[in-house]
Amino acid sequence: MEQQIAPLARLTEQFGRLPGVGRKSALRMAYHTVKLSKEEAKAFAEAILTARESIRRCAVCCDLTDREICAVCSSSKRDPSLLCVVEDPREVTAIERTHEYRGLYHVLHGVLSPLNGIGPEALTVMELLARLEDGLVREVIMATNPTVEGEATAMYLSRLIKPLGIAVSRLAYGVPVGADLEYADEITLARALEGRRSL
Amino acid sequence: MEQQIAPLARLTEQFGRLPGVGRKSALRMAYHTVKLSKEEAKAFAEAILTARESIRRCAVCCDLTDREICAVCSSSKRDPSLLCVVEDPREVTAIERTHEYRGLYHVLHGVLSPLNGIGPEALTVMELLARLEDGLVREVIMATNPTVEGEATAMYLSRLIKPLGIAVSRLAYGVPVGADLEYADEITLARALEGRRSL
Repeated sequence: MEQQIAPLARLTEQFGRLPGVGRKSALRMAYHTVKLSKEEAKAFAEAILTARESIRRCAVCCDLTDREICAVCSSSKRDPSLLCVVEDPREVTAIERTHEYRGLYHVLHGVLSPLNGIGPEALTVMELLARLEDGLVREVIMATNPTVEGEATAMYLSRLIKPLGIAVSRLAYGVPVGADLEYADEITLARALEGRRSL
Repeated sequence: MEQQIAPLARLTEQFGRLPGVGRKSALRMAYHTVKLSKEEAKAFAEAILTARESIRRCAVCCDLTDREICAVCSSSKRDPSLLCVVEDPREVTAIERTHEYRGLYHVLHGVLSPLNGIGPEALTVMELLARLEDGLVREVIMATNPTVEGEATAMYLSRLIKPLGIAVSRLAYGVPVGADLEYADEITLARALEGRRSL
């Protein structure tokens, strides 16, 4: 009967718009929300509004932040000669988790996708090129995803950046650590062979 | 770096409390929400608050509704002599979807679970018994889930209701329509044999 209960239907619809949430999950979430205490429901609604209001793009690297300049960009401990270009803020989180990278980032907020009408102007390419002007950056690491579009974007950017006399590198391809070779797809395996190193 | 962005971390935490949402999904949802327009974020937050404020239990059947008495209970087209007892509002929706049932419902909002400290007083058992007092109901259909706790709850209620001279029935067990016998579990299959009908 939830069709007839408008507020529940509206909330279900809202949850259904979240990535990876189907009709049944959205309904479960709506029922869950209705059972929250008044304070909990208020905290939930406020978290949405506060996040939407206070989160913006870092003025330097375009990563998400609640300040003018993000924590990485404003840290004096990071190496400003190394720039890692990623598609998404989530990739920054993933790379930070390795605790291996000490350079800076640049978040594109997408990849080139001509078929979907996404050209360089829809990404933060202008901002990236502006950052390279002062000559401080010595190497740009392309860490876009190993997809067709991620590759194309990396190639496109490298053609713009190399003429500036800046080294451009790409993340290594290969078999994931701990994975079983038997289950690796042919392309990954071929790339792993191609990129083999002497021991 | 999302650890350092408090509003994003708080929103991720809120999404992570929803049923079936893990850490990664919650983060994806939070990033998605940050990208919403101001109006969209406001509509989302308001849907939560409105649902929480306006949805309550029907004064008769305890199903969720935004009125004093729900649409099923206030309909003159339903058969008041037949009462279907379910665990959850979602089950009402599932049964309504069959378009086969014309009686009324009673929503328990849970099942008996002594190990988790859930006794009859935590469910709407009192409300159920009060509804049976006027002698209008002739049959109560136990449609609790076919789990150990659902069974125990159905047994418990049937022992309270039968002495009132009201028929108590249970949903039929059997192989799901369209399913392959090969994949049916032994218990379901045994119940299907036990409940066989002559053709």
